[in-house]
Amino acid sequence: MTFHISPPDGASDASIQAHIDSRLKPPGSLGTLETTAASLVRILGPSRTTIDAPVMLLFAGDHGVAAEGVSIVDPSTTQLMVHHFLEGNAAINVFCRQADLALRVIDCGTLTAHDPHPQLVSHRLGEMTAPFHREPAMTLEQLETAFANSRRLVDELHADGCNLIALGEMGIGNTTSASALMAALTHLPFDVCIGAGSGVTSTIMKRKQDIVQLGLQRHSQALKDTRSALAALGGFEIASMVGAILAAAEKSMVILVDGFITTVAALCACRIEPAVRGYLIFSHCGDERGHKPLLNQLEAEPLLHMGLRLGEGSGAALALPLLRSALAFYHEMASLDDAGLTL
Amino acid sequence: MTFHISPPDGASDASIQAHIDSRLKPPGSLGTLETTAASLVRILGPSRTTIDAPVMLLFAGDHGVAAEGVSIVDPSTTQLMVHHFLEGNAAINVFCRQADLALRVIDCGTLTAHDPHPQLVSHRLGEMTAPFHREPAMTLEQLETAFANSRRLVDELHADGCNLIALGEMGIGNTTSASALMAALTHLPFDVCIGAGSGVTSTIMKRKQDIVQLGLQRHSQALKDTRSALAALGGFEIASMVGAILAAAEKSMVILVDGFITTVAALCACRIEPAVRGYLIFSHCGDERGHKPLLNQLEAEPLLHMGLRLGEGSGAALALPLLRSALAFYHEMASLDDAGLTL
Repeated sequence: MTFHISPPDGASDASIQAHIDSRLKPPGSLGTLETTAASLVRILGPSRTTIDAPVMLLFAGDHGVAAEGVSIVDPSTTQLMVHHFLEGNAAINVFCRQADLALRVIDCGTLTAHDPHPQLVSHRLGEMTAPFHREPAMTLEQLETAFANSRRLVDELHADGCNLIALGEMGIGNTTSASALMAALTHLPFDVCIGAGSGVTSTIMKRKQDIVQLGLQRHSQALKDTRSALAALGGFEIASMVGAILAAAEKSMVILVDGFITTVAALCACRIEPAVRGYLIFSHCGDERGHKPLLNQLEAEPLLHMGLRLGEGSGAALALPLLRSALAFYHEMASLDDAGLTL
Repeated sequence: MTFHISPPDGASDASIQAHIDSRLKPPGSLGTLETTAASLVRILGPSRTTIDAPVMLLFAGDHGVAAEGVSIVDPSTTQLMVHHFLEGNAAINVFCRQADLALRVIDCGTLTAHDPHPQLVSHRLGEMTAPFHREPAMTLEQLETAFANSRRLVDELHADGCNLIALGEMGIGNTTSASALMAALTHLPFDVCIGAGSGVTSTIMKRKQDIVQLGLQRHSQALKDTRSALAALGGFEIASMVGAILAAAEKSMVILVDGFITTVAALCACRIEPAVRGYLIFSHCGDERGHKPLLNQLEAEPLLHMGLRLGEGSGAALALPLLRSALAFYHEMASLDDAGLTL
């Protein structure tokens, strides 16, 4: 599947910067809110003054490697958390309500299917990925299906007037998959890429490192191409996110990235189509070990530094009000000229 | 004037922490949002689930030292910015609208008086403080008047159902006054306390250092007591903020601190009444040189790190949605027990 992505061309960088610098404040005094405003206007253009019908896409998937003891948490927890996302009483539900952000939960392949629910999208590719240290996590056909499913979903949202998607994820074992992908695509050392996830013991950490190493060795040929690396190392929810990112960039939408896993998905999407980078806004730098070096690889300047490590899209939802404020100061503030002031 | 302030007793630290740790998430995974939730519940108690009728108090004042060339900006700018705050087109107006935060601008003493306006509170102590390197910035009587004015204002807001005040300030020359107060109260070295303010040249920076040094030498006796130090070094808006902080703590309200100047006011209030500390929430760590060491002195863990250096209360307004989300996750999330989960 080919995505047709051009870099954002909402307005020229020079004209955006000149507008920001001429607002009624010392130049640069709003810090990363200014760079965020610039990114938003570059994507949306100078006449779109609001973030419209934003949607949090929370991708859930189960992982074959979870059975290998890479997490302190039982694999059935993915299932359980999806249940709570649909009940509306998990952290991401609270933060979406606070931020006036719609929530869709995408079942990309979890241990058992869920009953239909208005907020649930069923894009199941199976019950879980294959354990990637022994075989490819998914086939290339499954990867293409994931991309097609996500593109259809994003195109529908775009048609409904949505100009921003936020990314969230849930999947026991997915930091292992994401760390493997990070190591494969960045060639950074293991100990930089592999962290504690939702909390692991040193024994589990060692197991996680072994599994990543085995996976990278087994799929060394596949790792030369981003799509086949993604199929080899999984997971279903990561592949589906990459598809959503590519589709949203194709439609010139703002893509709000959350924590480590979603940032790995963003890296994959950028490797497939480098023009994606201009549509990404990074909500936060979290506590998972690989997140900061990964953000550095992407030359990302995240908005929040709050020591978050929950996932679910929580950091993205928490950052959304800052995006609204960034766009609002750009469009609503008086200029220094209006005030007859030079700063 | 005496303020009667007891430490927050909304709920015990142990019961609050137990409640946070039992929410449906790995313990600690919401980072500083968890410590913020704990602070809010400690102040508001476990049954107050919302931030009610929050108000941004933006204190403006002019400084005698501004005539000495301690800023690149003309002293008349304080006046001009107050005009724009009342017109509604400065940065703080945008951020208050986005955060559903009411705005009151308090004229604590600026070069000329403003026409009456529904959002303007006239608490003028004069046209500007005296230049503190030559004489006390204000008299102790003026300081007491500032405290009394602020207490009356805060008491009215409290009576109207407000449970949070945010602090903002505007005053050309006020980083010089704030740096002098910081140096006087913390005994930290000059170069840690004095920064670039709204942007200064090296010549202006040297002048700023000289003035602070002269001020500290001239008032060495007065600096032994916080109130007389505050009167000696000014400014009117800083003194008024200290009064507002003391009054809000007396009423067990949440006090949301902004940047360097408001943090200096918070330090002064804590030195006058140490129990104030429990009512303070620090919105951000800004780019002004002294802000980080000052936050460290107060053992503060600010929410945002965005390189802000505007003042006006901008960081406090930007952080308010995070306070709402902190309180909301505390009260709205399911527990691990509900989910039958251990993390």
